[in-house]
Formats: sequence, structure tokens, C-alpha cells
Amino acid sequence: MKLKVGVIGATGYAGAELVRLLLMHPYAKMSAISSVSYKGQSLSQIYPGMTDLCDDILNDEQYVLDNSDVVFASLPHGLSEEIALKCYENNKLFIDLGADFRLFDEEEYKLWYGSEYKQKKLHKNAVYSIPELNRNELKGAKIIANPGCYPTSASLAIVPALKAGIIDYSNIIIDSKSGVSGAGRGLTLETHFPECNEAFAPYKTATHRHTPEIEQTLSKYADKKVVITFVPHLLPINRGILTTAYTSLVNNIKIEEIIGLYKDFYANEKFVRIMNNGQTANVKYVRYSNYCNISLHKDERTGRLIIISAIDNMVKGAAGQAIQNMNIAMNIEQDAGLCYIPPSI
Amino acid sequence: MKLKVGVIGATGYAGAELVRLLLMHPYAKMSAISSVSYKGQSLSQIYPGMTDLCDDILNDEQYVLDNSDVVFASLPHGLSEEIALKCYENNKLFIDLGADFRLFDEEEYKLWYGSEYKQKKLHKNAVYSIPELNRNELKGAKIIANPGCYPTSASLAIVPALKAGIIDYSNIIIDSKSGVSGAGRGLTLETHFPECNEAFAPYKTATHRHTPEIEQTLSKYADKKVVITFVPHLLPINRGILTTAYTSLVNNIKIEEIIGLYKDFYANEKFVRIMNNGQTANVKYVRYSNYCNISLHKDERTGRLIIISAIDNMVKGAAGQAIQNMNIAMNIEQDAGLCYIPPSI
Amino acid sequence: MKLKVGVIGATGYAGAELVRLLLMHPYAKMSAISSVSYKGQSLSQIYPGMTDLCDDILNDEQYVLDNSDVVFASLPHGLSEEIALKCYENNKLFIDLGADFRLFDEEEYKLWYGSEYKQKKLHKNAVYSIPELNRNELKGAKIIANPGCYPTSASLAIVPALKAGIIDYSNIIIDSKSGVSGAGRGLTLETHFPECNEAFAPYKTATHRHTPEIEQTLSKYADKKVVITFVPHLLPINRGILTTAYTSLVNNIKIEEIIGLYKDFYANEKFVRIMNNGQTANVKYVRYSNYCNISLHKDERTGRLIIISAIDNMVKGAAGQAIQNMNIAMNIEQDAGLCYIPPSI
Amino acid sequence: MKLKVGVIGATGYAGAELVRLLLMHPYAKMSAISSVSYKGQSLSQIYPGMTDLCDDILNDEQYVLDNSDVVFASLPHGLSEEIALKCYENNKLFIDLGADFRLFDEEEYKLWYGSEYKQKKLHKNAVYSIPELNRNELKGAKIIANPGCYPTSASLAIVPALKAGIIDYSNIIIDSKSGVSGAGRGLTLETHFPECNEAFAPYKTATHRHTPEIEQTLSKYADKKVVITFVPHLLPINRGILTTAYTSLVNNIKIEEIIGLYKDFYANEKFVRIMNNGQTANVKYVRYSNYCNISLHKDERTGRLIIISAIDNMVKGAAGQAIQNMNIAMNIEQDAGLCYIPPSI
Repeated sequence: MKLKVGVIGATGYAGAELVRLLLMHPYAKMSAISSVSYKGQSLSQIYPGMTDLCDDILNDEQYVLDNSDVVFASLPHGLSEEIALKCYENNKLFIDLGADFRLFDEEEYKLWYGSEYKQKKLHKNAVYSIPELNRNELKGAKIIANPGCYPTSASLAIVPALKAGIIDYSNIIIDSKSGVSGAGRGLTLETHFPECNEAFAPYKTATHRHTPEIEQTLSKYADKKVVITFVPHLLPINRGILTTAYTSLVNNIKIEEIIGLYKDFYANEKFVRIMNNGQTANVKYVRYSNYCNISLHKDERTGRLIIISAIDNMVKGAAGQAIQNMNIAMNIEQDAGLCYIPPSI
Repeated sequence: MKLKVGVIGATGYAGAELVRLLLMHPYAKMSAISSVSYKGQSLSQIYPGMTDLCDDILNDEQYVLDNSDVVFASLPHGLSEEIALKCYENNKLFIDLGADFRLFDEEEYKLWYGSEYKQKKLHKNAVYSIPELNRNELKGAKIIANPGCYPTSASLAIVPALKAGIIDYSNIIIDSKSGVSGAGRGLTLETHFPECNEAFAPYKTATHRHTPEIEQTLSKYADKKVVITFVPHLLPINRGILTTAYTSLVNNIKIEEIIGLYKDFYANEKFVRIMNNGQTANVKYVRYSNYCNISLHKDERTGRLIIISAIDNMVKGAAGQAIQNMNIAMNIEQDAGLCYIPPSI
Repeated sequence: MKLKVGVIGATGYAGAELVRLLLMHPYAKMSAISSVSYKGQSLSQIYPGMTDLCDDILNDEQYVLDNSDVVFASLPHGLSEEIALKCYENNKLFIDLGADFRLFDEEEYKLWYGSEYKQKKLHKNAVYSIPELNRNELKGAKIIANPGCYPTSASLAIVPALKAGIIDYSNIIIDSKSGVSGAGRGLTLETHFPECNEAFAPYKTATHRHTPEIEQTLSKYADKKVVITFVPHLLPINRGILTTAYTSLVNNIKIEEIIGLYKDFYANEKFVRIMNNGQTANVKYVRYSNYCNISLHKDERTGRLIIISAIDNMVKGAAGQAIQNMNIAMNIEQDAGLCYIPPSI
Repeated sequence: MKLKVGVIGATGYAGAELVRLLLMHPYAKMSAISSVSYKGQSLSQIYPGMTDLCDDILNDEQYVLDNSDVVFASLPHGLSEEIALKCYENNKLFIDLGADFRLFDEEEYKLWYGSEYKQKKLHKNAVYSIPELNRNELKGAKIIANPGCYPTSASLAIVPALKAGIIDYSNIIIDSKSGVSGAGRGLTLETHFPECNEAFAPYKTATHRHTPEIEQTLSKYADKKVVITFVPHLLPINRGILTTAYTSLVNNIKIEEIIGLYKDFYANEKFVRIMNNGQTANVKYVRYSNYCNISLHKDERTGRLIIISAIDNMVKGAAGQAIQNMNIAMNIEQDAGLCYIPPSI
């Protein structure tokens, strides 16, 4: 019997990608979708590519809650706690693609998001999960905080080195570049085609809200408070995040050994691919898939380890990872509905 | 039991897309792949996105012939007839993504391709198939000529109107625009990034080799020799063909009636979607999928019918349609391995 | 002594391009700029690329009128007549980049724009000018209607053949493709980067407001009422319009003769370049310049003449042509401030 | 009287940009151009955008030497020394856009370029010049080494902080992103449109040949041997380099003070624009111009100073800077022929 899955906020880019992937999931049945702005319209009216494939009518939040066993929400921050509470009380699995449950420390949340938790107790029950790092915590989880796109790309890149103790936890710089879909479907001058096409710049330099989330994960593996510099850039492509992480090796370890260490760390992980020495991760090789490619580069002259990771921000960075989390939490094979091979072009 | 499928010429863009789609096909098993230029290497060395997903070694043509029940070839013209002969003699299904079997009339082939048929008899056994138009001819076929990308987009757009007799067969203009993958993986100045990015122009104006192939199909449905003007343009995107066909209505039929006529024509066709009045076909809605979207527009002031069709040139225009042809010829449901929903972005 | 020039509506793309070009004009002095939305800010706050180069403060319409000898307006339609009247009464040259004075026939204007002329008498004094076609009318002009971008590209392409009588005036199809800057700086879903990047489609198929303007010019040269089919497409590049015009030759004239005829027609025109036989016009060759490239292609099989023209929609299609009109009207050499060579990339 | 200027290697992107800019230079006359591959053809045959604007015939190196007072060369490394010698012996100014004279230390050259200097003595007479840093050395110079594109963007960004002693010279990381024109006109798979469009990755990670050149300049201002980590990335746009430099502040200086320090450093420099606090440099604001925009960002949490610089790699990063060098060396105002305002889009 198929899982009844529902999506709240189905018309944003991440929401629509979730619906698309769930429609192709072998064990899921799309039971309900909602949208505040487009209630009453069909999803295919908003996304004509869905015509004949998802002409379901967008309903409201309550309808999704009433008709789903698993509820995904893809909403601006501040709107997920009430939904999580209702799911929790009704024993439904809730997977939040927003930011509300990502930070463990409410003080950090206040600092970066400017508001308080409304359902403080609930947060204790929430599991933050990049499956490759948090798989074991997912058993029995009822509230899953799906990580941000940048934190996914940065954490998968840096955690193995940090955990192995080969890099200095106090000197980590993360330079990320994201495709424009990461900025969402809302109209802004920055994402108006003539403004961002043939342009390139960082934004929210060293002040982006994903910073504390990355630090939270890295701190766990360093077993010390990690403070990073994080600079995201807007890349004039539709999809993909490439992260270039600059770290300092604590001793003179060979690149082959480092690559071996990473291959061991992710030995059982289908969705993380460690590239061979000499190869370089590229968003091209992971687009439209749930894969994360990682390449490792040693700067022999300075003793720095440069770690490159590439993901599709809409899949591994959002909808795909959410489904991967659902699969594991529901005891389904983790790659169900996620076996798409990245296209060559 | 799965079909043993092989691909000759697996490292070109169409060949690699074929391999990618066949790897995800529920009833196919990739049995062998070949390449002249890269023999001995793995496909994932050429396309790192395939790492762990297709590390198969590229062998030679004969190896593919020996190890496959269904043989696809994606080669420059002039190389397929010998392969077809071997398949025919060994009772294997051969599907040619090249041009060698597309034209029925050898004189046309000589005129446009500058060479003769080497295996004249074989051509009588070849079936040219856009499945929506040629489904019935596929039963028992042993040699299938998979159509060109432009002819697919143009024929699906124009045939219903021509067959219904509502447009003038002698006054058809086809203005097509194709993404750069259509030009292949071979390096040229025209497809060098700084040359074609932020540029736009037609090429082979009124002299493109797909012209006689389009005319062959249209002539069949007009029951008269159709001569068209065809102008392709190079579009600075990776994938997709949009065709704008200009035709003259022979009498004053309403647009709603025309749309109804198209919906009827394709009523049982999953992969052709006729858009509602007021909507416009866009390559965006079909990318990475086997769908062809068609929108119809009447110029009330001139009595012209403008037909817009959009396909992904690599899927419905090449690899996807080849698999659709295989499925039908092998009595598999036509959409097996082709149920991918076009992504929203 | 330099001309005091002012720009009303300086923050739209065409307005900002006007300011940029006028700042580099040898005989012009930027005297005033205005904006309704950004009044009080400097232009360089809106366009940081202008920092140190134009930190002028945006004022209001009246300020521009009071301080300029030549007034340009780049506004939505319906707002230019009042400005024109004030200029006319004060003997200032007014150049309108909007649509208000382009159509001679008020009935056409009502039909396509849905409103009436407010200053009917003024229209008699307005000169519509593509300088290569209307140069002689510019002497003493006080109100100049600067043509639309599509009409410029289409008229320059078709007029020589029509005037020479070698094509059938009753069978003209114009298929145009425009870069996204043509849609302006206003935010829309269609011009949101992830929506139009890697996408392609026509819009306002056979219903675009530039249709009557093209017909007005063509009719003048055909000496008959010309009715065309015009389909514009949105091209995912920043700048440039390519027009592919399909016409029918009335007799069997050789392509070399046609090219000669075009070269003669534009023999004294610096900004129109007729390409040699075998070459093809491309937006790449005219970007950031005031040039219009035209290539001619005969379809020997159907007797059609295919005319390709390429312009930069922001320069020859808007700001550059406006300056060219000003130069001629003010008895300055026509290329003053417009001698920029299109960059290779 | 105008300077007779010649360009050796006029058909590469940098060479063609040089010709374009020199043609618009008020005090220069294009006297001769050469190309090994295209000798005998006109430049406009190679670049049709030049039609009517530069139909000069490409001759050979000797012809350029014989007919020019100032000789520019834009060639692969290893080919400039002989040309430099001939210019030197004939008292002509030679400006090399290649790498042969950029490194002062032959050992570094051997290490990174794998060959020796052929004309060792000549190197003593060569001046390496980013004009904003080396203006005074240009007087009387006969051989000018025009800097690499990345070193220009990195040096202008970092030198003021380094000279002021506010950052740690031993901990500098340079993450650069370059448009594809930087890779040149030669065809490669990496720059084939479908391969680099919608893709993003670093290349030559920590091994790029511009590394020692950057270090040479930074070392001069630090007065210590500076060793950096430099990682360039290929950006799917035509033009522009954005450099994100990560440095460590040595004490707690305020961002306003740092910005002030930069504004002072470049107070008399027209072509370097220091952005105000809160603004961010973007390649968009400098495209097609000789400007370098720099923005400064303090990471208050880590004490790092992040310096962003943006240039057009073809202008300030190559041809424009070469002309700026010529102007100064020839006692012409430095901005002659370089006063182009970056277009808004």
C-alpha cells in the first residue's frame, strides 16, 4: 500500500519539485497539495509542464493535514511550527523544508531569524537530517528538519576531514555559488533575467542565515564550537550549488590518503560520490539528481586542503533529500523515487 | 526477462542520452556500448556524471552486435547500412538514430547527402517512425529509422491540420529554433561558448538536410508533393526545439474547432499534449521529457494558422523516441522508461 | 556649444541606455533626468555601473522640460502627448521613445492601444523616423516618434525589396526573436531568470502592438495596404533582435541581384550593413552598436526570399536610433556619439 | 599626429579587443595587424562584426614590426621575446599581453612555464605594469609586460590592505571566477557550449600559472614572500572576472575605516571604484569597460576581511589595461580611448 503524501506550499520551486519527484515515487501517492496564493487552481495551471501529469487542485493546509500520512511543508520561515504540532498530535510524519526546526539553539535562531520559537517543546522532538550524517536519528522520527541547500553542500564536504581531525576546525572558509532557483520563485530585481544573466556577485557576504546551520553541524563533528566564514554567490544558471571550502591541514597528509579517507567515510553511501585524484566536482555532473559529488585538492605550497562539492540545490539540496529522509524514516529503501541519473547535458 | 540492448556510438550526446534512459528502463538491460574514439575507456570517464551508474567499458561495434537483441546506432550518416544488414541477417531489431534510412527515395538521399545507398534492398524493410504517426507500421519491424529532431517537431505540429485538409499544402513555412546540443559534441567555432552565448542566428537557411524528411511526411498526409521552406536557428540553450509553423487556412474555421481537431487527432497519445486556447508551447515545459507540446494560434487578420510545437531534441527528438519505437516494436507499453515528468525549472 | 539634452524616464532600460550614450556624445550635455519612481535618488544608485560617471539626481518631468533643449521621453504609452505639447509650445525638440506618436491613423491606435489621442493636432507635426527611410522628413521636425524595436528590424529588412517590387506585398511573414531587455526592467514571471533561462517561446502571437507600425511603413513603400503576420519570441539573451522575414519573390531574380539591390538601397547608410552572399546576420555582430546587419537568402526550391536582420534592440532599436534622429534633426553628423564598434564577444 | 600602432596576434579574443579599442582611440592609428593562422584574410572575415570598420588584411609579424611605432603582441607564452628584442633594438614601444615578461624571477618562470628565458638581458628592461600600482615605472619604458587578468583583479583588491599592514600576509586565499572568453578562442571540450552552459566548477585548482604573478605583486607590498592559495573557476558568462579574496585582519579595524583607506589609496585613480559600505562589486557593473570595482566586507564574527573585485577580463584584464599602459608610457592622458561607460545591461 502506498504512503499518502501531501505537500503544503506546492507552488514554490522546492514544493513543485517535491510534487514532481513524489509523483514518480514507487511507494508514494500524492494525496493533497496546498497553496495560499493559488488555492483553487490546479498545479498544472501554475506549471504547464505538469499538464496531464498533475492537474490536482491546490487546496489549503488543513486539507493536506487531513488527507496525508506524510506531510511536507515548503514555506517561508515562521510558518511550520503550527503544522508540525498538528502532525505530531495526529502521529503523522512531518518533514519541513523550511528553517524553523533546523537550529537546535533558540538563541541562534533569534539572532539570525529575529523571532522566538512558538512551540518550544516540539523542537526537542525534531531531527535535523542530512541522511548520510544523521541516518540513525531518523528511526521513529516524527518531525524532520530538512537541511538548507548550502549547509548540505558544505557539511557533506567538510565533515569527513573534520571528524578525522586532519583539518584545523578554527580556520574554515566556505565560498559557495548557487543557481538562481535557490532564490525562489518570488520576483526580485536581482533575479530579473537581464540583471543576473551575464552578471556575477556574492550576496549577504558573511551574513547569510545558513551560517549557523553549517556551524552547528561542523561543531558536532569537531566537538568544539566552529565559527566559519561563509560567502554565497548568485550563479547565472538555473540549478546547482558548488561549494569551494578552504581548510588547513594539521599535518602533512597525502592527497591519496585524504581521498581514501573520504571514500571510506562514504563507503556505503549511494548518493555521495568521491571523485578520483585529478578529477574536479562540477554542478554539471549532478544536475537533476540526488547525488553529491566531492573532489579533494591539496595545495602543496600552503598545506591547505580545498574541498569542492556539487549538488543540485533543488534535489539533494531540498526536495530529493526530503524524500530520502522520508524513505529512511518510513523504512523504505533510501533511494526509492530518487534513482534518476544526471543527464549528460 | 529483460531485453539485451546495445548502443553503437554511445559517446555522442544522443548516444549517451540513450544509455542514460535505457539504464532506467524497467525492461531493458544495457548489454554493450561502443565508441570508435574512446574504445577501452569507461563511459563514466567520458561523462563523469555517470560515475557508479555506468562504468561499462566502451567496446566496438561487433561486440555490441554480438551481445544485444536490440541494437541502437547513433552515428554520422553513411555508417548504418552495414550494421543494419548484420542485424537483419541475425534477426535483431535495429534502431537507427542516424539519417541513412529516413528517406524512402534514394534520389532525394543522393541530392541532399551526396551518396548512394549501399544496401538498396534493406531500405524496403526499414520503417520510418514517429510513433504517433507510424505506430501500426512498427509491428514486426526489424529496421527502424528514428526521425530527425526537426522533422519530429514539424511533423507532429502540421500533420493533423494537413490531414484534415484545413490548410494549404503548398504554402508552409517552418521556422525552427534548436538548443545547441542538437549540433552534437564535436567542437566547432559556432558552438564555442563565447561565440554562441548571447548570440542568435539561423544556419543552413533553406538548405538543411532535414527539409526532404519533413516534406516526405507532410506529402504522405497531403497526398500531394509538399515543398516547404525550412529555416533552423541556433538557440543559446542546451536542450529543446521550438518550431513555429506558418500555414494558410483554406477556409474560415474557428480556433476552438482547430484545437478540438488536434485534441481528437492525438486523443490516445500520451506524449503529445495539445495546449488550451490562449496557452503557448514553450521548450521549458517539455525539457528532459518525451513530451511534445503543441499550441495553435489563428491570425484572424490574415487567415493564417500558426502552429507552435516544443520538444526536447535529445528525448522526443532522439533517444526517447527511439526507445518509444523499441517499446512498441517489442510489444512493451510505449511509455516504459519514458515516464519522466518535465522539471519546473 | 553643446546641446542641453534631458531624459524623462531615465531609469528604464531604454532611458538608462540613452543617458549612457548621451554622456559619451561629443556635442551633448546631459542637463536633466527624471523618474517618477526614483525621484531624489541618483542614477548611479539605481545603476551602480554609473558610479562616478552619472551621479546626477533624478528630478521630475517639469525639471527636465525647464532645463533642456532636446527632451527625450522613454515612458509607457499614453504619457507622451502632454510632454510633446509643452515642448512644442516652447520650441524644444521632443523625441519620444514610446508609442504615442508612431501611428498616423488614430483608428489604428484605438484598435491596438485602446485609447484616443488627447492632442490630435500635435500628431500632424510628428515625424516617425527610421533615419535610413525618413531622413528627409527630419529637417525642422519638432516632435519625433522613435520607432519600436521590432518595426525597426522588420522595416529595414523588407522595405528595399518591397520598394523594388520584387516581392509580393500580400504574403509577408515576420518571425522575430528578441532579447529579454526588450521586455523592460519591470518584474514579471516571464522574465524571472529561472523561468526564461533555458526556455524559449513566442508571445502575443499575431497580436503584438508593433504589428500596425510595421504595416504602416511597409504599406507606404508598397503603395498598398500591407497586412502581415508578425510573431515575436522571447530569446534568453540580454540584447538583440533577430528578424526572419519570409517573403515571396514575384519573379525569378538571382540572389546576387537582390543583394546588389540592397547594397544600392543602403549605399550611403553607415549603420546598415548588407552581408555578402553566403554570410548570415547574427545578433552577435551588432550588439552594443547602432548597426543593423541584413543578410539575404533565396529558397531556390520555393521562390521565397528570406531576409534576416539583426539589431541591438537597446541601441538601433531604441536609444541609439533616437540619438541618430536627434543628430540629423539638429544638423549634426548622424553618427556623432554612435561610433561604437560591436565587440567580438 | 597619431601613433602608429600594430597588433601581432590580432585574431585571438584579446587581440581583436585591442584592435577594436585602438580603432576608437583618438590618438592612435591602426597601422598593421598580423595572424599566423589567418594571414591574408581581413579581420572582418574572422569577425564579421568588424565589417566596414576593420577590413584590414592580416599580415605577418615582420610587417607589423616594420609599420608600427607601438607594437602589441597577444600570443601564447614563449613567442614574445624575439619580438621584444626587435622592438627594443628599433626603439619601438613593445607591450606584451602574454606571460613572457611578467615574472621577474626566471626560476619561477621555469617552474610554472617549463622553459627558460631566451633573452635574459631584455627582462631587466621590462616593466610589469598595473598602472594604478606601477605608473611611475612606465616613463621611458620600452618593454611593458601587461598583467594577467586574474593578477589584475587580485592585486588591485589586496594591495591597499597589504600595504597598510592591516591584513596577515601569510593567510590569503583568492577564489576567482572568470567568464569563458578568458579561456580564449581555441576550441576545447570545456568551452563547448553544452558543456559549460549551466555548469560550474573550478579548474587548475591551486596550480594555475597566474599564482606566482599574484604572489610577486603581493610580496612587493608586503615586503615579505607571500604565498597564496589561488583557485580559479569557469563562469558561464562571456566576460568578467569576480575575485573573492579572503584575508585576516591583524587588528580590530572598522569597516568604514578600511573603506576609507581604500578610497584614499585609489583617490586619484579613475578606473578603480571603491564601493560604499553595503554595496557589492558585481561583474555586471564593469562589463565592456576599463573599470575595476572593489567592495569590502568585514566578517565581524571571525575578523576576516573579504575583498571583492570585479573587472572585465578583456578590457581591464587585457586590452584596456594594455592601452592604459601605452597611454601613460607615451604621455597621453591615461583614459584616452578608454572612456566607455559600462552598459546597464
